[in-house]
Amino acid sequence: MASSLSSKQFVRGPRSDGGAGFGFHVSDPRKLFPPTLHISFRRTAPPRKLQVQAVGSTFGNFFRVTTFGESHGGGVGCIIDGCPPRIPLTEADLQVDLDRRRPGQSRITTPRKETDTCRIYSGVTEGLTTGSPIMVKVPNTDQRGHDYKEMSIAYRPSHADATYDFKYGVRSVQGGGRSSARETIGRVAAGAVAKKIIKAFSGTEVLAYVSQVHNVVLSEGLVNHETLSLEEIESNIVRCPDPEYAEKMIAAIDAVRVRGDSIGGVVTCIARNVPRGLGSPVFDKLEAELARACMSLPATKGFEFGSGFAGTLLTGSEHNDEFYIDKNGRIRTRTNRSGGIQGEYLMGKS
Amino acid sequence: MASSLSSKQFVRGPRSDGGAGFGFHVSDPRKLFPPTLHISFRRTAPPRKLQVQAVGSTFGNFFRVTTFGESHGGGVGCIIDGCPPRIPLTEADLQVDLDRRRPGQSRITTPRKETDTCRIYSGVTEGLTTGSPIMVKVPNTDQRGHDYKEMSIAYRPSHADATYDFKYGVRSVQGGGRSSARETIGRVAAGAVAKKIIKAFSGTEVLAYVSQVHNVVLSEGLVNHETLSLEEIESNIVRCPDPEYAEKMIAAIDAVRVRGDSIGGVVTCIARNVPRGLGSPVFDKLEAELARACMSLPATKGFEFGSGFAGTLLTGSEHNDEFYIDKNGRIRTRTNRSGGIQGEYLMGKS
Amino acid sequence: MASSLSSKQFVRGPRSDGGAGFGFHVSDPRKLFPPTLHISFRRTAPPRKLQVQAVGSTFGNFFRVTTFGESHGGGVGCIIDGCPPRIPLTEADLQVDLDRRRPGQSRITTPRKETDTCRIYSGVTEGLTTGSPIMVKVPNTDQRGHDYKEMSIAYRPSHADATYDFKYGVRSVQGGGRSSARETIGRVAAGAVAKKIIKAFSGTEVLAYVSQVHNVVLSEGLVNHETLSLEEIESNIVRCPDPEYAEKMIAAIDAVRVRGDSIGGVVTCIARNVPRGLGSPVFDKLEAELARACMSLPATKGFEFGSGFAGTLLTGSEHNDEFYIDKNGRIRTRTNRSGGIQGEYLMGKS
Amino acid sequence: MASSLSSKQFVRGPRSDGGAGFGFHVSDPRKLFPPTLHISFRRTAPPRKLQVQAVGSTFGNFFRVTTFGESHGGGVGCIIDGCPPRIPLTEADLQVDLDRRRPGQSRITTPRKETDTCRIYSGVTEGLTTGSPIMVKVPNTDQRGHDYKEMSIAYRPSHADATYDFKYGVRSVQGGGRSSARETIGRVAAGAVAKKIIKAFSGTEVLAYVSQVHNVVLSEGLVNHETLSLEEIESNIVRCPDPEYAEKMIAAIDAVRVRGDSIGGVVTCIARNVPRGLGSPVFDKLEAELARACMSLPATKGFEFGSGFAGTLLTGSEHNDEFYIDKNGRIRTRTNRSGGIQGEYLMGKS
Repeated sequence: MASSLSSKQFVRGPRSDGGAGFGFHVSDPRKLFPPTLHISFRRTAPPRKLQVQAVGSTFGNFFRVTTFGESHGGGVGCIIDGCPPRIPLTEADLQVDLDRRRPGQSRITTPRKETDTCRIYSGVTEGLTTGSPIMVKVPNTDQRGHDYKEMSIAYRPSHADATYDFKYGVRSVQGGGRSSARETIGRVAAGAVAKKIIKAFSGTEVLAYVSQVHNVVLSEGLVNHETLSLEEIESNIVRCPDPEYAEKMIAAIDAVRVRGDSIGGVVTCIARNVPRGLGSPVFDKLEAELARACMSLPATKGFEFGSGFAGTLLTGSEHNDEFYIDKNGRIRTRTNRSGGIQGEYLMGKS
Repeated sequence: MASSLSSKQFVRGPRSDGGAGFGFHVSDPRKLFPPTLHISFRRTAPPRKLQVQAVGSTFGNFFRVTTFGESHGGGVGCIIDGCPPRIPLTEADLQVDLDRRRPGQSRITTPRKETDTCRIYSGVTEGLTTGSPIMVKVPNTDQRGHDYKEMSIAYRPSHADATYDFKYGVRSVQGGGRSSARETIGRVAAGAVAKKIIKAFSGTEVLAYVSQVHNVVLSEGLVNHETLSLEEIESNIVRCPDPEYAEKMIAAIDAVRVRGDSIGGVVTCIARNVPRGLGSPVFDKLEAELARACMSLPATKGFEFGSGFAGTLLTGSEHNDEFYIDKNGRIRTRTNRSGGIQGEYLMGKS
Repeated sequence: MASSLSSKQFVRGPRSDGGAGFGFHVSDPRKLFPPTLHISFRRTAPPRKLQVQAVGSTFGNFFRVTTFGESHGGGVGCIIDGCPPRIPLTEADLQVDLDRRRPGQSRITTPRKETDTCRIYSGVTEGLTTGSPIMVKVPNTDQRGHDYKEMSIAYRPSHADATYDFKYGVRSVQGGGRSSARETIGRVAAGAVAKKIIKAFSGTEVLAYVSQVHNVVLSEGLVNHETLSLEEIESNIVRCPDPEYAEKMIAAIDAVRVRGDSIGGVVTCIARNVPRGLGSPVFDKLEAELARACMSLPATKGFEFGSGFAGTLLTGSEHNDEFYIDKNGRIRTRTNRSGGIQGEYLMGKS
Repeated sequence: MASSLSSKQFVRGPRSDGGAGFGFHVSDPRKLFPPTLHISFRRTAPPRKLQVQAVGSTFGNFFRVTTFGESHGGGVGCIIDGCPPRIPLTEADLQVDLDRRRPGQSRITTPRKETDTCRIYSGVTEGLTTGSPIMVKVPNTDQRGHDYKEMSIAYRPSHADATYDFKYGVRSVQGGGRSSARETIGRVAAGAVAKKIIKAFSGTEVLAYVSQVHNVVLSEGLVNHETLSLEEIESNIVRCPDPEYAEKMIAAIDAVRVRGDSIGGVVTCIARNVPRGLGSPVFDKLEAELARACMSLPATKGFEFGSGFAGTLLTGSEHNDEFYIDKNGRIRTRTNRSGGIQGEYLMGKS
């Protein structure tokens, strides 16, 4: 059986990249934040710079990713440490997923144009990984400085500029760029490598699709998690494998898009052929690591696993995934309310 | 303003502590798991023991907690590393929260009787922390071996015994005990210390209450997050600050309890007076760390922050928390849909 | 071939445990540190307690040890996380090494009497590890408060009390206890477990002996690293496998011991049957991790690997360990100046 | 007072960068390693690539450096995470130290020509750090593929190619490049940033000089650690502040250089104005972290602190650094045998 999780985040809309902005929606930014206010932030910065600050740009223990770069600057990317040696890897392998992430692919995404062409600078020789750190960099092409002029005056509601200014004494245009969707380029590149490894190691497949946009909610049974393919997901611009619902979702996005607004949605992710016994107790258990990873994505506000919040409407006995032994003598569960995770481990495909 | 998050987990019911069991619900365990099957697991164990396994019993960077112990054995507890020196601390400080956690406090919790009396073995001298690791241990009193006899034969559905057996080649009674609610004793002790530190440092308060039990959902406006007190939460056995809803929740639990069943619910947690700028980009951002911590609790299946999943029904412009400057000239937001977190940082109380 | 390293540290002498003291050697402590000075330290403590402090009581990634406890308090020990499951383990396994560490075993060690009886509180069931954290605790028996009375007034030269007081605003008797040799009890217990694992996994053996005491330096060729046994090392109270030199070393210690003084020495450690390819580039390379571990021991002031500092007297071509293929067609090196480590990895026994 | 440590490593000689080679010194590599042997290594690689491997390219907790790149490939560099915001930083700041590291500066270093011109790609805007990760990259210019042809056949003694091949199934030319001195470019860049921070924060200065080359040992008293300046160190090509000994050292290197050989030496490092109380017990104590950092440098075989190995010739009472109070009422020690570290902390300048 496959395990599934879903995390709510904003579907890529005109400003879903967190870098472009609601700025012009603020009635009169100058009233809210007179320059003096800004200068005062600047003033408070110096003492701050002596504080010890936690660092948070690294993820993973064995397969460790460290990302760098902001929406504006020389480029974005990552160092992938712990990749096994002698795995075939080319820039093309990463480009596939980087292109899927890239804004400007269709009318429902941000008009911002980016050509996220990656280059691998280390860790790969003659098409094979060497076991050394893999550094991947994508140059920043579209600087769009002009769009950000007003930000030097106003904070954009629900954006990172205010908080970055409070914390670092710098404006979002630079520092806040870390909270931009462009930071995820390094994650996407690392994810592409990770998918190659787990596919080769255990035939594990990870797929994700849009299961809700605003109030358009894909019905439970319409997607077969056993047979779902990337092609089905990619068959439309909103990436919902059900054509009929895909149309409804696109219509919903178009409706707000023309108003220069955006709407949220839910992404459902499934993992197939997961090695039995994956994960570790207790703080690093799989649910916790997956939740941390998903919630660290910009604009993500919720995460659920298996039955998720709906599970509250079940009793313990209803919620149980009963064991049985299939005709091949393998242990399976008749249901998957625990999302394939029981106790602390993923039981995965039996 | 206060920030809030909610995570769904099973309210303590007859068997919600993950250690007591559905075992007897399995029609005929021996049919499902003939001894031969067990022996085969045992057989496959030795090679497994040479595998490198991730370790996951440690949480935190500056204030680091490492928990130990299972539901059965010499005891449970933790080592708290990184506690500042010269903070007044006694076992009584920890006992308050350990008593709140303890099962057997009322009819709606597991009948299991435990007297979780803690002792501090290091890091505290003459009532003051020394800056050295604080080791806290709670002995295991109620062994209840008799309840677990049958587990040596059957796996309990949706419990950890099967997965522990798959992974470690040991039965849940021992190894699986790590997935028991008793493991959380170490977290509760560490949390009590943490609460003292943040209260002294920045007046920060963290409170949590039950906002849903099965289909009894506490209405939004009924709890004032600005004034909510621990006393209100403790005023009833289900820990819902609204007396009327508390009664409904208790009734819902009683209804299934008499059938020897359990039901799920939602816990809402709020933090007040949070230092502005708390948290770090990008993987360790506050939402991610909180999600990881909550999802690492046994039986927790979902986590949301601020508007959470409901936020999907808002448009970007509706979801914005607009800034304004209050009469004291402080920057505030009129709403708190982002749960107090904007960009990657908690803005907390302005 | 075996690899070897040596680290200089004080042989256990009358006060080598860092906890007992030079205190009474200070001519007139009150002159050095008038009480007022103390009070001023106390005063400066409170602000300090709000500082973020690094935590350093945890070592290791896959096999992770977190120690707790000071020379005075409820006890000392550790949590061992990441121990493979189903490994036979009893308290007796740990007690062997704990007894070897224990002071008061002979006339040349501190007179301090301790009975370091350990107990395992978690992670082991029916004589087998479960894969869960193993908590080991040794109670503190000999409090010797009387010896420390004067310390409440004077700092002991080259001891930790002054620095702990500067840093934490607490006296060495409590906080400084972490720099006492008693802290190493947790390491010894974890090391005993580690030795069982690597012995079972790859037949790897780790042995250490005293190769120098003051100016008594054991000649190079006298110990055969291929055949050296623990029995030879344990054959005398100074733990030098060569009986003749052992006598000289004991005599050197006795000479200063009667004056109530202590002297330093060198411990040489060898590892046999080390798996080829052990270790990781670059910051965690084996030499670096071993150096960190050895230098973190109290009173250790130097570390060298293979040819060590003497290697400076060789030219690059002289220093090379030339490869050859032995009669079994295995790759070996004719010499071991690199201490078995070439590039970043231990080649170990071929 | 200043604290000092010394770590033995090879002075940069014709092949001290670990990337250039002894290869042509091997009498007849083809005899030692027939191609068949190689193929067999290749064969054993695939299973290896599924192993979990430790990752070791990251150093530090608050100020965290992750390096990438090998001697051959697109480039080398690092990501610096945790740098405080609003610190003035330009590429020129890093270039100074990168130029000092660069081979080919004088006749006594490797003839290899490199122009290590760095570029900062993120984390700095308008000459100020933003608090975001700083990615620094230096392109590889001198590929020198021709020098390495024969390495596709032979292992170089005491180099990393054999071990990398054993471990990763790749040849040193690529993977082994991580053990090349070029990997240290990322460390040098990060070190330059670190030096700016500690200088601004606490006026802390870190200086290092060559104190021994082969059998030319600089006498103890000749360098004044209180007044030593970078200019004195840079006044000659061997970086020994004493002109007379510098000449002797250069002569010693020239003597072996003309034979195409290299010799080792000792680098002494001092830190001035170190904040009192720096460091953390117990595994992360300053001596341990410094030892780890130094021993992780290629070709380093020894590390000592304060009195170091020579301290073994002192008795405990001789070794003590006695406290006294200077005319300004500050606590100082009359000697510095403990290298400024007492207990577990650096007391630094009093």
